[in-house]
Amino acid sequence: MQAADWILWNARIYTQDPEQPEAEALAVVGETLAAVGPMEAVRAWQGPRTRVLDLKGATVLPGLIDAHFHLEGYARLQMGVDVDTPTLEEALARVARQAATRPPREWIVGRGWLQERWGRFPTADDLDRVAPAHPVALWARSGHALWVNREAMRRAGVTRDTPDPPGGRIARDAAGEPTGLFFERAIDLIAQIIPEPSVEELAEALYEVLYELATLGLTAVHNFDGPRSFAALQILHARGDLPLRVVQHIPLSALDHALAVGLRTGFGDAWLRIGSVKIFADGALGPRTAWMLEPYEGEPENTGIAYTSPEVMREAAHRATLGGLSLAIHAIGDRANREVLDLFEALRALEAQRGIPPEARRHRIEHAQLVHPADIPRFGALGIVASMQPIHAVSDRPMAERYWGSRCATAYAWRRLKAAGARLAFGSDAPVEPPNPWWGLHAAVVRDGWHPEQALSLTEALEAYTMGPAWAAGLERWQGRLRPGMWADLIVLPEDPFRIPPDALRDLEVLGTMVGGRWVFRKGSHLLD
Amino acid sequence: MQAADWILWNARIYTQDPEQPEAEALAVVGETLAAVGPMEAVRAWQGPRTRVLDLKGATVLPGLIDAHFHLEGYARLQMGVDVDTPTLEEALARVARQAATRPPREWIVGRGWLQERWGRFPTADDLDRVAPAHPVALWARSGHALWVNREAMRRAGVTRDTPDPPGGRIARDAAGEPTGLFFERAIDLIAQIIPEPSVEELAEALYEVLYELATLGLTAVHNFDGPRSFAALQILHARGDLPLRVVQHIPLSALDHALAVGLRTGFGDAWLRIGSVKIFADGALGPRTAWMLEPYEGEPENTGIAYTSPEVMREAAHRATLGGLSLAIHAIGDRANREVLDLFEALRALEAQRGIPPEARRHRIEHAQLVHPADIPRFGALGIVASMQPIHAVSDRPMAERYWGSRCATAYAWRRLKAAGARLAFGSDAPVEPPNPWWGLHAAVVRDGWHPEQALSLTEALEAYTMGPAWAAGLERWQGRLRPGMWADLIVLPEDPFRIPPDALRDLEVLGTMVGGRWVFRKGSHLLD
Repeated sequence: MQAADWILWNARIYTQDPEQPEAEALAVVGETLAAVGPMEAVRAWQGPRTRVLDLKGATVLPGLIDAHFHLEGYARLQMGVDVDTPTLEEALARVARQAATRPPREWIVGRGWLQERWGRFPTADDLDRVAPAHPVALWARSGHALWVNREAMRRAGVTRDTPDPPGGRIARDAAGEPTGLFFERAIDLIAQIIPEPSVEELAEALYEVLYELATLGLTAVHNFDGPRSFAALQILHARGDLPLRVVQHIPLSALDHALAVGLRTGFGDAWLRIGSVKIFADGALGPRTAWMLEPYEGEPENTGIAYTSPEVMREAAHRATLGGLSLAIHAIGDRANREVLDLFEALRALEAQRGIPPEARRHRIEHAQLVHPADIPRFGALGIVASMQPIHAVSDRPMAERYWGSRCATAYAWRRLKAAGARLAFGSDAPVEPPNPWWGLHAAVVRDGWHPEQALSLTEALEAYTMGPAWAAGLERWQGRLRPGMWADLIVLPEDPFRIPPDALRDLEVLGTMVGGRWVFRKGSHLLD
Repeated sequence: MQAADWILWNARIYTQDPEQPEAEALAVVGETLAAVGPMEAVRAWQGPRTRVLDLKGATVLPGLIDAHFHLEGYARLQMGVDVDTPTLEEALARVARQAATRPPREWIVGRGWLQERWGRFPTADDLDRVAPAHPVALWARSGHALWVNREAMRRAGVTRDTPDPPGGRIARDAAGEPTGLFFERAIDLIAQIIPEPSVEELAEALYEVLYELATLGLTAVHNFDGPRSFAALQILHARGDLPLRVVQHIPLSALDHALAVGLRTGFGDAWLRIGSVKIFADGALGPRTAWMLEPYEGEPENTGIAYTSPEVMREAAHRATLGGLSLAIHAIGDRANREVLDLFEALRALEAQRGIPPEARRHRIEHAQLVHPADIPRFGALGIVASMQPIHAVSDRPMAERYWGSRCATAYAWRRLKAAGARLAFGSDAPVEPPNPWWGLHAAVVRDGWHPEQALSLTEALEAYTMGPAWAAGLERWQGRLRPGMWADLIVLPEDPFRIPPDALRDLEVLGTMVGGRWVFRKGSHLLD
C-alpha cells in the first residue's frame, strides 16, 4: 500500500488555507500534500517506509515565490565584477584586479553601480585609468544604464558620429564625444558584442543560482530573462536538476516567434512553464527614464521615456492575448502605469468580444512604482496583478523623494493598491536588488518607516509572496497554500516569524526547503533524520 | 490511506515487460500503475474506495501509439468532402452536392483522390462542370497534389504566366495553360488563400478526432501538423479535455522561431510535449516525386524531387540539434533515404564533438519506404528510428510494383530494417491512410501476402506500435509497457489478438481505453461497473 513518504509533525504550520489556517502536522505522498491537520489524523498516513520528522516546534510556511527575477542577469552577476561599492575608487580597484589577472582580449563585465552613491556619473576616463587594454562594461544596479571604457566603444564601433538609437541615449561631452555611458536602448550598441557563455555553461550557473534561492526559502521563481535562460532551464529540467519551479516569461522580441510556434501561456509542466509576454512601457527611476505625467522635480523638461510606444504595445498586446499569451508590462512612472492600464482596459474589451474571460489572461504590471491616485482602483477593476518588489521602496527612497517629491504619497503603494482590489505578487527584481525574500518581507511590513501607512501586515506580505505569484501564473490550485492535493512546496523556519520583532525578519534563516515532496535544501538536526 | 483507484483482474495482460511478460491483474493509483502481477499481490492495493473490475478473461495490452499522424489534416478531412471514390464521376457528384447547398463565396475543400483508381488525373474542366462558381480545392490522398477548379485559380491569381515555384510543379496543357493540378510546393499557391477555421474551432474538431482515436485503442499520437494544431491542443489541455497524449512535432518553417524562443525537444508535460523538427527530403510515390537513386520504371528522365535541398537540410539540422531539437525527416525514395542517412552520419559526428550522446537526440526518418540494401544497416548503426506506416505497403503495392519494379524487394522492409538494428515506430500517416491501428497491425504481420519475408510477428508489430514510438519520444520510462511506476495507459480487448487468425486483427474492437488512469472510452458490460 502507498503510504506517506514524509510526515512532519510537532510544528506550527501556517497553511494560508482559510478552512484550517494552522495545523501541527502534514503528510506528503509523492509530489503533493496528502494531509494537513492534527497529528491524530495525519498519522493514518504513516507506513513502514514513511519518514516521520519531529520538527520540535519549528514553523512551516508555504514555499515563497519570487514573482520577478532575472535568472541569467543574476547568474552573470555572480560570474562578473560586483561594482556595488560605496566609492568609485573601490569599484575601479576591483576592475583593476580583474585586468591584472586576465588576458586583454577578455571582456571585464560587471554590475551594481549607482551614481547617487558616488556623487557623480562615472566615465570612460575613469576606467581607462585602471583597464585601458581590456574592454570593460559595467551595468548600473538598475540595469538601465551601462558604463564602458574606450576599448569597449572601439570594439563596438561607437564614435562621435554614432547617433542615439530610438529609445536610448549615449552620454556625450561638450565636444560631442561619447563619455562612456549608455542609457536604455543605447545599451545594446555595446551589449550585443559581449560574448555570451554557452547555454550549457549558463545551465550550470543557473543551477547554482536556483540552489541559492532554495536556501533562502524560495520554491518557485518567475524568470524575466529570455530564451537563452529558458533553454538552459530545459537542460536542467531534462536531467532532473531543477531545484525550483520556474515560470518563464517571453520578451517582446520573441513574441512573433512564440506566436509562430503556437506557444501559449501555461504550456509546460509543474516545474517549468510558459508565463507572460514582457514589454517595457518605460525606463527606471534612477536614470529618470520612468515615464511621468508631470516632469521630474528640478527637471522641468524631463518626463522620462516611453520605452515602447503605446501604438507598438497595443498592437503586440492584441496579438499576444488573441494568441493565448498573457502580458506582463513593466511600468514605473505614473504616465507609464496609466498608459498600460488604458491598454489593459481596451484589451479586456477585446477579450470580452472574443469570449475570453478575464481569469483566462493573468495580465500584470511589473513594478507599478508610481501610480496616480486616480489609477489605483483600476488594477482591481480590470483584474490586473500588481507585481511589485517591496525592497525597491527602501533602496529607492532617496531618489524617489528627490525626483518625485510629494508624489511619493502613492509610490510603492501596496497597501492602497491592495485595499482597492489589486492582487499583489511580490518579488526581488534580482539582480537589481538582492534576492533574499526575507528582506522583501521586511521591507513590505516595515518600509524603514517611510510612508508607514502603505505597509502590509506580515500575513498580507506572505500572501503576496505565495498566493499572489501562484495566481499570477494560473497555479492557484497547486501552489501558495498548504492544503491536501496541492504541491508539497514548503519551508521550515527555526522561529515563528509572527512572534519575532519585525526587524528580525531580515535575519531569518531557513532550515529546510521542500519542493514537490523533495528536500532541495536542509540543515539543522531536526531535518536530518 | 491511499489505495488503488482501479484494480483490473481476471485478465490476460500482455505487459511487454521482459521481467513479467504476462499477468492477471493490475492496480492503478492516480495516473500510474502501482502493481502488475498475480491477483494475490495486486489485491494488497485494494482499499474501501477502489473500484475492482473483473475483466472475465478479456485481454489487456499497453495503449497503442501512432507515431505519425496529421491531426489537423485528419480533422479538416472530417469537415470536408471525401473524394476517395471508385470513380471520378462519384467524386464530382459529391462536389456538386456541396455546391448546391453552400453560398458561392465559400470554399469547397476535400481530400482523398487517387488518379490510379480513376485511370487518369482529374482536371479543372471536370470540376467546372459541377461547381463553376465556388472555389474548389481537393487534395490527393497522399497530400502531395492538389486538384482545383478555375475559380480557385482565379482567386489565387494563378495564370499561364505563373512560374513553377522551386520544388513544385503546375500541370499545364500543350498551350501552357494550367490544367488544375498542383504538385508539391506549387500546392501552396492555392492553399495559402483558403480560409482556415479559427484555433478555437480547430480545438473542437481535434477533440472529436482524439476521442475517435481513443475508441480505436490509441493512447498517444505524434502530431506532424503545425503550430495551429499545437495551439488548439494547448486549448484542450488547459481545460483538461485532452483525451490522448500528444507529441507535437515542429515544421521546418517554424524552426527559426522555435530556436529564437529557446524551445527544446521534450519541453511540455506528460500530455503534450515538443517532439522533433520535421523536414521533407522528398515527395511521394504516387506522384513519382519520391527522390530515387535510379529513374522510375518507364520514366527514364524522372528520379523525383529533392523537396528540401541537402544543403538547406544540413544547415537546418545542425542548428536544430545544437539547439536541443531532434529531427524527423520525411524520406520515401532510396536517394532521399541515403541523403538523410548521410546527413545523420555527419550530425552524429558533430554531436559527438559537442559531447551530445546519440540517445539525447532521437532522430527519425519518416516513412523510409524504399531503402537501398546498402543503407539498411545504417539505421541501427546511427541510432535512427525508422518511423513507418505498415498500411502503406498494402495501399501502395500496385504503384510500388509499377514504378519501382524489382526494387520492391527492399521496399517497406520493416523486417530487414529491424533485423539490422533499426528501432521501428509505426503509425498511420492519417489522413493519407485510415487511422485504425488494427489495420496497421494487420498489414505489418500479413502484408496481404506481398513480400511476406518482410512481415513481422504480432509481438514485434505491437512493440513498434508501443515501445517504438515511446522510445522515439524519449518516453520509454513512462509508456509502451505495463510496469509499476509507468503511466496507466492501456486498452482492453474482447479477444486475445495472439489467439485469433491474423486476418481477424483488422476487425478487433476495443472495449476500453485508459490513459493516465482515466477511462477515456469504455463500452461493454465488464467495464461499466
